[in-house]
Amino acid sequence: MCEGASSTGATPSEEMNGNLMDFLDEPFPDVSTYEDFHTIDWLREKSRDTDRHRKITTKSKESYWELIKSLLDAWSGWVVMLLIGMLTGTLAGVIDLAVDWMTDLKEGVCLSAFYYSHEQCCWTSNETTFDDRDKCPQWQKWAELMTGHSEGAGAYVLNYFLYVLWALLFSFLAVSLVRVFAPYACGSGIPEIKTILSGFIIRGYLGKWTLLIKTVTLVLAVSSGLSLGKEGPLVHVACCCGNLFCSLFSKYSKNEGKRREVLSAAAAAGVSVAFGAPIGGVLFSLEEVSYYFPLKTLWRSFFAALVAAFTLRAINPFGNSRLVLFYVEYHTPWYMAELVPFILLGVFGGLWGTLFIRGNIAWCRRRKTTLLGKYPVLEVIVITGITAVLAFPNPYTRRSTSELISELFNDCGALESSQLCDYVNNPNMSRPVDDIPDRPAGPGVYSALWQLALALIFKIVITIFTFGMKIPSGLFIPSMAVGAIAGRIVGIAVEQMAYHHHDWIIFKNWCRPGADCVTPGLYAMVGAAACLGGVTRMTVSLVVIMFELTGGLEYIVPLMAAAVTSKWVADAFGKEGIYESHIQLNGYPYLDVRDEFTHRTLATDVMRPRRSEPPLAVLTQDSTTVEDVETLIKDTDYNGFPVVVSRESERLIGFVQRRELTVAIKTARQKQDGVVSSSVVYFTEDNPQVAEACDPQPLKLRRILNLSPFTVTDHTPMETVVDIFRKLGLRQCLVTRSGRLLGIITKKDVLRHMAQMMNQDPESIMFN
Amino acid sequence: MCEGASSTGATPSEEMNGNLMDFLDEPFPDVSTYEDFHTIDWLREKSRDTDRHRKITTKSKESYWELIKSLLDAWSGWVVMLLIGMLTGTLAGVIDLAVDWMTDLKEGVCLSAFYYSHEQCCWTSNETTFDDRDKCPQWQKWAELMTGHSEGAGAYVLNYFLYVLWALLFSFLAVSLVRVFAPYACGSGIPEIKTILSGFIIRGYLGKWTLLIKTVTLVLAVSSGLSLGKEGPLVHVACCCGNLFCSLFSKYSKNEGKRREVLSAAAAAGVSVAFGAPIGGVLFSLEEVSYYFPLKTLWRSFFAALVAAFTLRAINPFGNSRLVLFYVEYHTPWYMAELVPFILLGVFGGLWGTLFIRGNIAWCRRRKTTLLGKYPVLEVIVITGITAVLAFPNPYTRRSTSELISELFNDCGALESSQLCDYVNNPNMSRPVDDIPDRPAGPGVYSALWQLALALIFKIVITIFTFGMKIPSGLFIPSMAVGAIAGRIVGIAVEQMAYHHHDWIIFKNWCRPGADCVTPGLYAMVGAAACLGGVTRMTVSLVVIMFELTGGLEYIVPLMAAAVTSKWVADAFGKEGIYESHIQLNGYPYLDVRDEFTHRTLATDVMRPRRSEPPLAVLTQDSTTVEDVETLIKDTDYNGFPVVVSRESERLIGFVQRRELTVAIKTARQKQDGVVSSSVVYFTEDNPQVAEACDPQPLKLRRILNLSPFTVTDHTPMETVVDIFRKLGLRQCLVTRSGRLLGIITKKDVLRHMAQMMNQDPESIMFN
Repeated sequence: MCEGASSTGATPSEEMNGNLMDFLDEPFPDVSTYEDFHTIDWLREKSRDTDRHRKITTKSKESYWELIKSLLDAWSGWVVMLLIGMLTGTLAGVIDLAVDWMTDLKEGVCLSAFYYSHEQCCWTSNETTFDDRDKCPQWQKWAELMTGHSEGAGAYVLNYFLYVLWALLFSFLAVSLVRVFAPYACGSGIPEIKTILSGFIIRGYLGKWTLLIKTVTLVLAVSSGLSLGKEGPLVHVACCCGNLFCSLFSKYSKNEGKRREVLSAAAAAGVSVAFGAPIGGVLFSLEEVSYYFPLKTLWRSFFAALVAAFTLRAINPFGNSRLVLFYVEYHTPWYMAELVPFILLGVFGGLWGTLFIRGNIAWCRRRKTTLLGKYPVLEVIVITGITAVLAFPNPYTRRSTSELISELFNDCGALESSQLCDYVNNPNMSRPVDDIPDRPAGPGVYSALWQLALALIFKIVITIFTFGMKIPSGLFIPSMAVGAIAGRIVGIAVEQMAYHHHDWIIFKNWCRPGADCVTPGLYAMVGAAACLGGVTRMTVSLVVIMFELTGGLEYIVPLMAAAVTSKWVADAFGKEGIYESHIQLNGYPYLDVRDEFTHRTLATDVMRPRRSEPPLAVLTQDSTTVEDVETLIKDTDYNGFPVVVSRESERLIGFVQRRELTVAIKTARQKQDGVVSSSVVYFTEDNPQVAEACDPQPLKLRRILNLSPFTVTDHTPMETVVDIFRKLGLRQCLVTRSGRLLGIITKKDVLRHMAQMMNQDPESIMFN
Repeated sequence: MCEGASSTGATPSEEMNGNLMDFLDEPFPDVSTYEDFHTIDWLREKSRDTDRHRKITTKSKESYWELIKSLLDAWSGWVVMLLIGMLTGTLAGVIDLAVDWMTDLKEGVCLSAFYYSHEQCCWTSNETTFDDRDKCPQWQKWAELMTGHSEGAGAYVLNYFLYVLWALLFSFLAVSLVRVFAPYACGSGIPEIKTILSGFIIRGYLGKWTLLIKTVTLVLAVSSGLSLGKEGPLVHVACCCGNLFCSLFSKYSKNEGKRREVLSAAAAAGVSVAFGAPIGGVLFSLEEVSYYFPLKTLWRSFFAALVAAFTLRAINPFGNSRLVLFYVEYHTPWYMAELVPFILLGVFGGLWGTLFIRGNIAWCRRRKTTLLGKYPVLEVIVITGITAVLAFPNPYTRRSTSELISELFNDCGALESSQLCDYVNNPNMSRPVDDIPDRPAGPGVYSALWQLALALIFKIVITIFTFGMKIPSGLFIPSMAVGAIAGRIVGIAVEQMAYHHHDWIIFKNWCRPGADCVTPGLYAMVGAAACLGGVTRMTVSLVVIMFELTGGLEYIVPLMAAAVTSKWVADAFGKEGIYESHIQLNGYPYLDVRDEFTHRTLATDVMRPRRSEPPLAVLTQDSTTVEDVETLIKDTDYNGFPVVVSRESERLIGFVQRRELTVAIKTARQKQDGVVSSSVVYFTEDNPQVAEACDPQPLKLRRILNLSPFTVTDHTPMETVVDIFRKLGLRQCLVTRSGRLLGIITKKDVLRHMAQMMNQDPESIMFN
């Protein structure tokens, strides 16, 4: 009977097999996705996308409807970019407007419309003259509104008190919202986005909830007057938008590789609106955050960045059709001799970068390891309190940091009324407005210098403690502020030296009396570039962003000189920028494209199992039973298992994913008759020869076997292996020797080995 | 005695082996380099550079001298960039000045100094008024100088005759110099540079001789008035400079991979001076020509491009401190409705691109296959003659193409005296100079339109036949000219329509009477971008170059709309740009990064040997004799041979390069006692057990065995294989199945397969 059953019994089994195959054609709900905190397999994602594309192309020949669908599919990339650009630009505009209003709310309120910022309030007022354009009757400070007195010690104290109170309220709201609704909304987000773009999965990091909360809390955090900026978080917000729109198209939502192409473009859009620099944004994405950046993405990023910039311009948050507050135009050229102070500013930027990274990382480590980390709300409140209390008395720290930078970058025109432009004018002067010769500084400039020096120290110290708290916080603006203050101080010093000592040999050749030789605003900009470069180690994108801010090729050389010097100085103290340092601090499995691996180790030194470890967990092609497989899955937590011909020969056949194996066995057990614990699992191509007809039905799983696993020989130098992992985005790689399977190298192993070679703590790398 | 000899005889053999090893440590004069028209192995070049770097780092700890040497080595990259930038900028300046002078020489000569161009001649003259600034007594046309009459039919004919004569003389000189001294100096050079950068060796293509001859003949060719530009050849010139300076540093001259990094940066410098667009140059290098472009190269390219731009600015060839003749500034914004004509211009650009590519490739193929190719000098002479005869009567084709583009781009100011700006002015007009309302066109504009239309047809036809002749010829300028003419015509048409019919619904919303709504110059620029995009399929770099020419973010949207439309239209007719088409025409083994390979073939379908072919030529690890190896080397022309355990098991051990094998055996035969034809070649790790003591001395060659050859399984999809070849820059890849060696895939096989899949002629690919 057994024999008779074998011929008839085979048919339903074949049928079931066929069904199973069909079933496997449909994506399992979980199989195609990855688990949280795991690494994606770029090659696999790419080939899945090619399959999808092939299917659509074939279908498109069948009917008009399919053709239209295939065209829609081809266009979906551009649609996503358009949507990202528009939403990012809109959000950036809304954030700008809200920050403007709430920052001013700390000082006073507009009586004509409470939702007007100070500038808007006085803008619509027609009772003011040009000189007093920031003093209009509609805008009232709190003390004036509450007590009726706008001057005097009482009013000052009341304003002071309310300033601190508002700041505390904003930051408390921000940290509470982050704590309760979206813990991922804190920080700048760039380290995590770099990690995600390199192929790591952090679920919810780019979710809708994060988008909403990060946008709201960003406004609160910036308005609270803390020493932080909105530029880094804007990149995170843009990437959340990108992720949001990915979910509209299965092309992107179901493929982690394609999704990352969209995210790279979104990052470009984020920087584009943060600095009003679309080209700089694309280069930032290319240089700083992206991992896999094909040419198609370059073009689409550019499109997204432009759409975002134009959307923001249409919103026009600053009322001057500029995208940023600190757009400048200079009128005088720079001179060769000025390269010396520019390079000194570069050195300062490099030192600041080193100090900031070391201090901030030490503080963040302390936060991770001590009680400090247990009270994030208290920490934010305390830091906000200190910031507000110290910031109010100094006019340069009281206002928002972007305004400060804007004033520092500015060239003093004839109509400028600010303290920094309090020069002693020559009464006989009758030059055009733009071309004012160097003048002696008035008392206002000197007092401004003192206040700026105090602001510099304050900013340096407080920024180190601010970055990394549980609120959205970018460091572009504080870094630029530090550099701009230092630069302006140096600029004024050089200017006054040149004015008072234009017979000195260093000034003689280029600065005649009565000429406009030194532009202190340019020094501020160079200093800002240097400090930003020291912290982030950006190079080309930094210079291009600054170039787009000034709009003149003229000033690229000073900016480049400072950026290069700053990078070299900072690199001398430590190769890593702030983002890489934070990635390392958090132990993300990030394989930096820039680290050169130059050690002489071989694949055999890195692969597992090591000598002392148990042998590699493998399956054989035709002698493992279902029970064996289930035990293996239960006992280990590997992501997959190599399949070999037999335990004796150890010749590699393929690789099978843990998840697919689990699902396939579970499905077979449920749906396929005759599959029991003792069924043999077959990975072979031919039909298994059932030796005895009474044996349980075999389970054929060749379908889920990856027949082209990546292999290297045990003698392959690790530098080649690292290169392969980087360029192909592998998850794991099998190690063979003369065709025999010896071991496996995972991305985690590679990272651990690299850390070991660089004498770092290898255990800090998060489990993949 | 044999036995006794075996123990003592082993020692000298070991010694000799040792010597051989030492000898192998020294690079053989030929082994490290590649043969002409062969492909480099990027992975190998990279690991060689890492070795070199490791050696220097180790040595640098030994003495101060070595430390200084290591620092110099680290700086050499920047020094090379500086030198490239300076030389490229200088050459570009010299070329600009020489072209200016020689172009004018066709019409006349400066009496005050014969080496002055027309403009320089009248510049130094102080006898001219502003209106007649191009008519000064020092500048005399040939007819005036020779006959004394500057007007009349006789003078016209004489001028005509001399114009043609000079053109023929210049082009004859150019083609003769190319033919006799540097055949590689012809063409634009960009297809070849793309191929070289992708890892191909073409000896002498970037040599000193090519540099010299290309610079000289470029001047001659451009001056002869042929429809060609200097932009592409400038990239070639810059790459020659890069190659020249590579030879100063062994780091670059001895490593083909590192050399290509320098060449990528040099290409950026070339575009930087060609268009005065440093950022555009870097993006052009990244998008269009480079293959391997790490971030370090990005930064260095930027540096080289800036140095080149500033060197050119210091030379100031146009006397206006601009880097190009056609820098423009517009004063009026564009309106949404204008996007329609802009997109139409994009369609025109795409059609022009298709027409040009098809026509030019068909003509070049004819040149390759028919008698035409036998008479390159005659061809150049004939085309020059036709060009000059047809060009002289039309003022828009008589002048140099850059001047034409410059005039077409220009916005008509109030002081403009050219025919194109002959508008009917409102006598009551009292507006500022820059903001002139739309005016009705005068008779000059209408006659200009006719002349421009004729020039357009002439340029379209003649350019197809010009590009690809045996003289240096770029196609940027002719393409831009075609687009600019078409754009200007469309622009004037829209302008006049808007003026005469401003009550039409399409104009009503944005163009009130008396306003300056339409800028025909902007249309010309958009048209130029569209045509250039259609021909080259550049995208981001094109828009950025144009952005750097106008300097305003404002006009990016029109440019982008036109560039995108043009690319889409052109792509619909054929995926390849002109450079890829020429690469294919010439059969260079270029693996395009942008081609998506979406077919379902597997490695097993591509690998060799095919079924009908003889088995793979392999060596065994311990059973091949010296004679066998020599026979194999003689009988085959493979670049290397896989080494297997034995012919039965076919398990792969490693791969040995043909050149290294040849040299090693030759050396062993000469220097190592006892190595005869019947000696067994051993690739094993352990010492060979000499079975019979009387056997000839074995030859141990494990040292030259590459123990980490790249393998894939036979089931690997070809899209993955193509990806691996692209990203890792492989030369060949071995195919295995369950650890057994099945075959080999070379880059040539991959290219042939891709061509087959795309139904192209696979045999046209050059042998690697």
